[in-house]
Amino acid sequence: MSLDDVVANIAPADAAAREAARRRQERLTKPPGSLGRLEELSLQVAAIQAAERPVVRGKAVVVAAGDHGVVAQGVTGYPQEVTAQMVLNFLAGGAAVSVMARQAGVRLLIVDAGVATPLPGHPDLRVVGVGRGTADMTQGPAMSREQAEACVLAGVALAREAAAAGADLIGTGDMGIGNTTASSAITAALTGRSARETTGRGTGRSDDELSRKVEVVERALAANQPDPSDGLDVLAKVGGFEIGVLAGVALGGAAARRVVVLDGFISGAAALVAHRLCPAVGDYLVASHLSAEAGHRAVLAHLGLRPLLDLGMRLGEGTGAVLAMGLVEAAAACLREMATFDEAGVSGSTDEPPP
Amino acid sequence: MSLDDVVANIAPADAAAREAARRRQERLTKPPGSLGRLEELSLQVAAIQAAERPVVRGKAVVVAAGDHGVVAQGVTGYPQEVTAQMVLNFLAGGAAVSVMARQAGVRLLIVDAGVATPLPGHPDLRVVGVGRGTADMTQGPAMSREQAEACVLAGVALAREAAAAGADLIGTGDMGIGNTTASSAITAALTGRSARETTGRGTGRSDDELSRKVEVVERALAANQPDPSDGLDVLAKVGGFEIGVLAGVALGGAAARRVVVLDGFISGAAALVAHRLCPAVGDYLVASHLSAEAGHRAVLAHLGLRPLLDLGMRLGEGTGAVLAMGLVEAAAACLREMATFDEAGVSGSTDEPPP
Repeated sequence: MSLDDVVANIAPADAAAREAARRRQERLTKPPGSLGRLEELSLQVAAIQAAERPVVRGKAVVVAAGDHGVVAQGVTGYPQEVTAQMVLNFLAGGAAVSVMARQAGVRLLIVDAGVATPLPGHPDLRVVGVGRGTADMTQGPAMSREQAEACVLAGVALAREAAAAGADLIGTGDMGIGNTTASSAITAALTGRSARETTGRGTGRSDDELSRKVEVVERALAANQPDPSDGLDVLAKVGGFEIGVLAGVALGGAAARRVVVLDGFISGAAALVAHRLCPAVGDYLVASHLSAEAGHRAVLAHLGLRPLLDLGMRLGEGTGAVLAMGLVEAAAACLREMATFDEAGVSGSTDEPPP
Repeated sequence: MSLDDVVANIAPADAAAREAARRRQERLTKPPGSLGRLEELSLQVAAIQAAERPVVRGKAVVVAAGDHGVVAQGVTGYPQEVTAQMVLNFLAGGAAVSVMARQAGVRLLIVDAGVATPLPGHPDLRVVGVGRGTADMTQGPAMSREQAEACVLAGVALAREAAAAGADLIGTGDMGIGNTTASSAITAALTGRSARETTGRGTGRSDDELSRKVEVVERALAANQPDPSDGLDVLAKVGGFEIGVLAGVALGGAAARRVVVLDGFISGAAALVAHRLCPAVGDYLVASHLSAEAGHRAVLAHLGLRPLLDLGMRLGEGTGAVLAMGLVEAAAACLREMATFDEAGVSGSTDEPPP
């Protein structure tokens, strides 16, 4: 299936199901509006599933890892080998996302989307053989357009696999030393903001290092002149393999009518690419949390998303997505399973007639 | 056991365990600080449990229901019978907190703490036989000092029961038509703020009705002159039976060295009472969410608590507590189960030497 076919298969969420769910919501045994943002969230899930009473059974997060040639410009405080080391940590169950997913009953799909350091084969590791780390984007495009499309299609297939295995919520997670730099460049290219607005400290660096990182993003944008109307062009020129895979997960999730739960800044940059390729994907996106990474606000503003959590996290890996899945699940369960005033024999407000 | 004995049994959380946990946290495979507020939360759980590697197995929420004589003043838009009707809805599993607790594996302890309408016996309903609805606090004290102490001690026993049955997290939840009015009066009395600052709309009422509610709170405070240095006096004069029970749950949870997860405004008012009776209880409290009810900010500011969630909820029942328990569980699990850099063979930052 080509990327054009995938995009053509993505329909807007179901407005009639949303309206039916809204009417049901009004009759549930609680004061109107008292579940706050969970109410709107439950209607979104209903619209995505085209069901008045939505259901969340399975949950999965695709954790995609990739390396970035731009680390040659000194933009990060960790050696590149950490990407591969963390993939092994994911597989061994010792990373934060491993622990959280185990505790919350979330299945992880761990993906070598283009890690530079060779990784041993592992039954739980999916390999997308597009490349071993991107090229340095300050010197030319990070990858070819063909590689970009291949990454995205691999992500679509992963989302389809997760959906077929029963995931009603599909989350995104990332690992990649240097990938905040690529995400800053993508965000600048696709939102029209300056590199200074979209670039943050990554993993806790100094003011000087931040200035250098901004300058690296500016050079990458100047060298490549990505076309903001062309999501694949932006991904190819200043993106990353794992970011392409996650953009594909968003598209594939939407095509399968699944809720796509975005993690933080890198996942957000991937969603910007997916949204540029197919604006209808927006109906399927849930922003799990507001990352402490500076550029994330610009991403969410552009996508019109409001994060569910704001806990000062900036780890990636899908940790925010896993945490927020519990909230999505609770919202859907209330809409599905709560008793109505009639069913429970509970009196409504005397202020207004019962709906 | 007397209330004095309970208070005398509450020790501060363990500073040495917190420090050991902090050192462990530094060695886990993630950039320092990247889990944001979950890191501090995990240290709090470690200090409460006096364990470097804390654990969350069981979770329980005490949902206490009671009625309020002040409804005679027209402060609410729902008839008083709704309190009893909702208790039946809790028992039948149809309320929001029922649904959320089922989905999240949280045990509910449903308590008739003083409902006015007679309830049929039910094997899952605990009954605190202190009274059937409080007196109208604009006409005199809501209850006697003896009743106030009995409620609190009943709550202590419920927390002890939950802890003995394996709950590591003990949440609070409330139901009671009119109980935002009592909570506003308690909050004004114990924080020194004006009734206007501590009184909100409750379940979505008009400006005129809000003004009337403020005036009712002012009259209750003027009629009773509660002593702000005496938590039991405030509870007796302008409180409620379910609020007393929840204050007891906070004290009993702290005495059993359990994490006490507060729901919203009514639970917060109960925590103010508990905190006035025993300031050390503060070490054990976690604020689950910021309620949309106006007085909640004053409660949290006074207790020095920062809520984990801000979703515009104002339902009570323990819904916020249930939602936040997943975050507390995730925080504790990361501290307990994540691999260290050494264990996982992951390289640390080149910016600073590994701890």
